[in-house]
Amino acid sequence: MRAGVVGASGYTGGDLVRLLLFHPKAELTCVTSRQFSGKYLSSVHPNLRGITQIKFEEYDVNRVSDKCDYVFLNVPHRASMNIVPELLQTGVKVIDLSADFRIKSQEVYEYYYGKHEHPELLGKSVYGISELHKEEIKKANLVSCPGCLASSAILGAAPLVSTGAVDLNRIVIDSKVGSSASGREFSLSTHHPERANVVRPYKVTNHRHTAEIEQELSAVAGKSVKVAFSAHAVDMVRGILSTIHMFLEKELTEKDIWSIFREFYGDEPFIRLVKQKTGIYRLPDPKVVVGTNYCDIGFELDEHMPRIVVLSALDNLIKGASGQAVQCMNIMEGIDETTGLTFPGLHPY
Amino acid sequence: MRAGVVGASGYTGGDLVRLLLFHPKAELTCVTSRQFSGKYLSSVHPNLRGITQIKFEEYDVNRVSDKCDYVFLNVPHRASMNIVPELLQTGVKVIDLSADFRIKSQEVYEYYYGKHEHPELLGKSVYGISELHKEEIKKANLVSCPGCLASSAILGAAPLVSTGAVDLNRIVIDSKVGSSASGREFSLSTHHPERANVVRPYKVTNHRHTAEIEQELSAVAGKSVKVAFSAHAVDMVRGILSTIHMFLEKELTEKDIWSIFREFYGDEPFIRLVKQKTGIYRLPDPKVVVGTNYCDIGFELDEHMPRIVVLSALDNLIKGASGQAVQCMNIMEGIDETTGLTFPGLHPY
Amino acid sequence: MRAGVVGASGYTGGDLVRLLLFHPKAELTCVTSRQFSGKYLSSVHPNLRGITQIKFEEYDVNRVSDKCDYVFLNVPHRASMNIVPELLQTGVKVIDLSADFRIKSQEVYEYYYGKHEHPELLGKSVYGISELHKEEIKKANLVSCPGCLASSAILGAAPLVSTGAVDLNRIVIDSKVGSSASGREFSLSTHHPERANVVRPYKVTNHRHTAEIEQELSAVAGKSVKVAFSAHAVDMVRGILSTIHMFLEKELTEKDIWSIFREFYGDEPFIRLVKQKTGIYRLPDPKVVVGTNYCDIGFELDEHMPRIVVLSALDNLIKGASGQAVQCMNIMEGIDETTGLTFPGLHPY
Amino acid sequence: MRAGVVGASGYTGGDLVRLLLFHPKAELTCVTSRQFSGKYLSSVHPNLRGITQIKFEEYDVNRVSDKCDYVFLNVPHRASMNIVPELLQTGVKVIDLSADFRIKSQEVYEYYYGKHEHPELLGKSVYGISELHKEEIKKANLVSCPGCLASSAILGAAPLVSTGAVDLNRIVIDSKVGSSASGREFSLSTHHPERANVVRPYKVTNHRHTAEIEQELSAVAGKSVKVAFSAHAVDMVRGILSTIHMFLEKELTEKDIWSIFREFYGDEPFIRLVKQKTGIYRLPDPKVVVGTNYCDIGFELDEHMPRIVVLSALDNLIKGASGQAVQCMNIMEGIDETTGLTFPGLHPY
Repeated sequence: MRAGVVGASGYTGGDLVRLLLFHPKAELTCVTSRQFSGKYLSSVHPNLRGITQIKFEEYDVNRVSDKCDYVFLNVPHRASMNIVPELLQTGVKVIDLSADFRIKSQEVYEYYYGKHEHPELLGKSVYGISELHKEEIKKANLVSCPGCLASSAILGAAPLVSTGAVDLNRIVIDSKVGSSASGREFSLSTHHPERANVVRPYKVTNHRHTAEIEQELSAVAGKSVKVAFSAHAVDMVRGILSTIHMFLEKELTEKDIWSIFREFYGDEPFIRLVKQKTGIYRLPDPKVVVGTNYCDIGFELDEHMPRIVVLSALDNLIKGASGQAVQCMNIMEGIDETTGLTFPGLHPY
Repeated sequence: MRAGVVGASGYTGGDLVRLLLFHPKAELTCVTSRQFSGKYLSSVHPNLRGITQIKFEEYDVNRVSDKCDYVFLNVPHRASMNIVPELLQTGVKVIDLSADFRIKSQEVYEYYYGKHEHPELLGKSVYGISELHKEEIKKANLVSCPGCLASSAILGAAPLVSTGAVDLNRIVIDSKVGSSASGREFSLSTHHPERANVVRPYKVTNHRHTAEIEQELSAVAGKSVKVAFSAHAVDMVRGILSTIHMFLEKELTEKDIWSIFREFYGDEPFIRLVKQKTGIYRLPDPKVVVGTNYCDIGFELDEHMPRIVVLSALDNLIKGASGQAVQCMNIMEGIDETTGLTFPGLHPY
Repeated sequence: MRAGVVGASGYTGGDLVRLLLFHPKAELTCVTSRQFSGKYLSSVHPNLRGITQIKFEEYDVNRVSDKCDYVFLNVPHRASMNIVPELLQTGVKVIDLSADFRIKSQEVYEYYYGKHEHPELLGKSVYGISELHKEEIKKANLVSCPGCLASSAILGAAPLVSTGAVDLNRIVIDSKVGSSASGREFSLSTHHPERANVVRPYKVTNHRHTAEIEQELSAVAGKSVKVAFSAHAVDMVRGILSTIHMFLEKELTEKDIWSIFREFYGDEPFIRLVKQKTGIYRLPDPKVVVGTNYCDIGFELDEHMPRIVVLSALDNLIKGASGQAVQCMNIMEGIDETTGLTFPGLHPY
Repeated sequence: MRAGVVGASGYTGGDLVRLLLFHPKAELTCVTSRQFSGKYLSSVHPNLRGITQIKFEEYDVNRVSDKCDYVFLNVPHRASMNIVPELLQTGVKVIDLSADFRIKSQEVYEYYYGKHEHPELLGKSVYGISELHKEEIKKANLVSCPGCLASSAILGAAPLVSTGAVDLNRIVIDSKVGSSASGREFSLSTHHPERANVVRPYKVTNHRHTAEIEQELSAVAGKSVKVAFSAHAVDMVRGILSTIHMFLEKELTEKDIWSIFREFYGDEPFIRLVKQKTGIYRLPDPKVVVGTNYCDIGFELDEHMPRIVVLSALDNLIKGASGQAVQCMNIMEGIDETTGLTFPGLHPY
């Protein structure tokens, strides 16, 4: 299959390009960037030096659609909503990494992001968490990939939320994220002397990802779920750990909880349940998943409250963005969904 | 006043020695370490090179009590409980940095730490958070300084807990802490290649500090409080951020919450309320308090749940240990409690 | 081909195992570790969770040689020298990652490492820098892989040293290396609070790698070369930058130097010449090669002295160890030397 | 004495303000910033929250000179050269932290920095390394503080250069510096995801500080000295380590070298000679001096070449800038030069 990346100069774009260049079944046929048009990919993504001679080109709907079966969109929120319709009309399949088509409710979208220009498409896109929507993704023309923080939160919380065993009004999701999540745009807040050594509560209420987390968890629960979501910046480049605190309303043993997770995720190839008795990586840690498409999930049962603490770790740029997107393409194409996504990460790093 | 530090080879001991050497009213008369007896302080604490010629000596109750008016105890839990009684008998005032005399309830102590050899002293020690127990500290012979994570949690949560406006059964405290909190003892888990780049959920349930947090918050609330406390290791050396998620049971505006904090802490010299509208340090961040005796506290009101998120940041080795201990000594001695504790920290670092 | 790793619990062993598991032409048939025998690889190498069910076994010369065509040896210096002979006798090909067979001169070896038990093999091993010894490696039964610092130094210095244009008595090699280079053994010096934020001159004179650097550069120069080599620990996990200061004895332009490098390395697939006019990665930086088998090399000409500063960057665990070793195996086997080694690294990380 | 800081919004300005606020003999009477005029110091320097209510004001030569006895200038190179003359005319003493008056030779200045508008003042300023120019500083009206990298290089190299025992044409100075050295101005190169995990050769030839290093070392040597100077950015915020490689031309023992350093620096209060036989901080490391005004200097003798490797560590913002400047003020004022500069740093940090 032929794949293109529109808006490929950012960090997610860079990882997408890297994954597609090494994907054994995909051919990277088109890479666009307004700012860097005419330049080599490696001028922005130094790890691609000597790997490819592809250059950025300008976005043009006809050229892109001629060259591609799948188009990955990496443009900012609100830019995406106007490009998606014209791409869909050409018949290409679109995998959008912006937030523009994640939210089914126009009202909720507009609360968090402002006016939507193409609300008619909201219902047609599939939310691209493959572990929850695989069958829909197979048939989709438009997949809207989840936010990185949302991915870790939803994947961690969904199994227990689906059981009704936890208090659905008191779910606290406390996330810690690396600096690459702010993208390639720099500012004082990402200036190294200011960004090193922080635990910065950068968005502890009203984070936009709340919308998609609640949408997906409500669907899983079969009723409305609200989450208390807070995000913190920590001193690392890649990775997210979401700590999900849930209060038990039914009695559950560790074994019960294990069964819930195992049953929920079955053979999902990129979910690893991590709960070891010994060692220093007994529970999920972004350190172990950086560079990979895995989401590691584990938990501890706190009989004191009683409470379950779920830990969910992933690489924000891969399972939280580009890798998830490629996984969706694989599913849409009907090939093994792990194709091109098996890099196991580096240890230590 | 003459001060001594028993067990001064660790990180807290190092900071205590540093603070006392530069304290304008204290004289550091005695520094003990079994392991390093006979060696210069700077052999263990390299920042003291050229600053002092003091050497570590062996601990001996008579020598220590002869030389000191105040003794700071930095020995491990369970070692402290046998040294405190003999020191108290000599008439010196003891400021204990172990957990042995923090918990008033023998049962609770023993649940978390094992058998107590001197339960008769549990009721006589004063819990050394000066913002809560200043009057008692003034008259105390034995002050038991709080744990570093407990300090940040209690100082952040106490004001709202005292009002009864939040759900006292659903307080989630999610703490992030630097590597110095594990002390000077090394292991695979603190080995740099393994400890760098982590967000490691090292104690997400059943943390021992739960005992003192619940003791102090229950006292403030006037009824039993249970907390859902979880601690994570992040990639920095010093500092703690505690994110305290509390669900509102009464309606409170931002202004109300401000008033609660202001009234609760009044003129406390080491509590700074931080809630700015602009800038990159709008809320507390350990980056800003490292090196200081400040605890920065701020909050956001989440009308969506409704929830209050309190952020509490301090330097685990200073306000969370040595600085708090010196502050207690100042209070016991009746001098300005900020004496020797005014270093404002470095920015950036 | 069937490959085994003896002594696979360390960081280099972990990377070797990872590379072999994903190598399309190799089968990992045997992994030994005395300490972890019977345990899953993932108990030590957390990135291999869910990737393999292989367990560590005890080393036994017969079992290992029955199962393997190639044996990678990752045991400490001085342990290797006694295992190599017995393995060679079974007919397997040995790729040794210790220092025991790197040095051709018994006298030099013994100056740096102590008595050699099998000096008769010193002349039979091939020094495994594939860019310098490819033809010999093809025919070798025993390849001795270079040290990580030596790799970066030799690859960076060799082209100019070969020309005779620089003062061979005044070559300064100033290297900066991450914490993974000290291996999995922990100590106070690698304890995170002590190892973070350092620029620690840990071996600024008399580093053992001096021996192999001088051996190889002397061979390239055709006469005796001495180097002023110093190594520093910096705050990162993986990676080495060697800054090689050489004083010009003949006049050379930038273009001349380019030609020297281009000619020296020709089409070597893992050497990238990096010297851009713009961008923030104009010269080699370990950040860009971590995770890869590349050695990036660049230079600046300082007309002021005149001096050439060569920069050489690689991942100490890959091109400086495991990747170089796999590259040697590929060459010995006669397959494309890049097989299994094409991962381009992550950016940013 | 009354002190003012012109251009106080940067990192050096922040440290100057901090030092002056806590200086027992100085009164901070005036702090200017064009960009932040009217705002609290703490809006830019978050560590000053609750410490001072001083606000930035606009620079005005009359107001500044009315309020101050000493003016510290922290404006960019080439801006300083026009402000210094008007300030000097008012009779205040000026301590300039820019490069504009560091270089005695107009020609050399202009080679590195461009045209000088007030060359007549070049000869009147005193180069503010107090260990070399104390007597002149006492009498100076204009002190020009050295660059941070230059400080570490000069202080480390001067003693041996003064003896004539080393090859003055082959001095290699390889420096490693933290991100705060690039100041508060942000760019892609200081963006955390790009700046973390680097060893970036950002200026390996033709660094401007070469001019002042050579000027000062030539003065010390009594003849022309050229240095091969290269600077690298490493992943830390504060600190510099300069590794100075010098080739011996006379035979010197370790003891001889010790004597040279001891004699050269005598009782200098901020020079610590560091060369321990044991421990993990046997040689200078910026980790140990961050936050302080110390320059730690040590060495190793390499009999192999023979070569001396001198290590020189300091905090770029303090001994490399603001602390050195305050030390000059103390000397100019005739008070103990350590006044206000005794903070011993934090360990660990």
